[in-house]
Amino acid sequence: MRKVKIHITLKEGVLDPQGKAVHNSLQSLQYNNVQDVRVGKYMEVMVEDSDNLEAEIDRMCDQLLANPVIENYSYTIEEAG
Amino acid sequence: MRKVKIHITLKEGVLDPQGKAVHNSLQSLQYNNVQDVRVGKYMEVMVEDSDNLEAEIDRMCDQLLANPVIENYSYTIEEAG
Repeated sequence: MRKVKIHITLKEGVLDPQGKAVHNSLQSLQYNNVQDVRVGKYMEVMVEDSDNLEAEIDRMCDQLLANPVIENYSYTIEEAG
Repeated sequence: MRKVKIHITLKEGVLDPQGKAVHNSLQSLQYNNVQDVRVGKYMEVMVEDSDNLEAEIDRMCDQLLANPVIENYSYTIEEAG
């Protein structure tokens, strides 16, 4: 079994209204040294090991987990249980 | 300037309907070797350096970014620009 940790982030230049909202909330709480906030997704996928696991994870991300038009993804694969 | 990378995940035992939905979608796409999916949040916060940055990030997470009742958070602080 492998644990795949996937990070999905908006591409540079893509507007991030959620990050902007978090930034505004932090400022209203007097965290004035915050310059920017970008919000992404983080997933932990438990998957049975296979020979072409990386290719499979790439396909999952392209097909379902990320929107390749506006998002980047990266992942690490760890041994698990 | 520092880049703080924050991971927010549901505590173990807390139901994750979003993860369940992603898992079901992966199965309907024939990814049958996926055993479990947990969905969390990932944030990148650009912040001016300060003496007690870690304490400040902890407060941000407890106050706004995470829900300490059902979520755990962790973060790393990196040098940026």
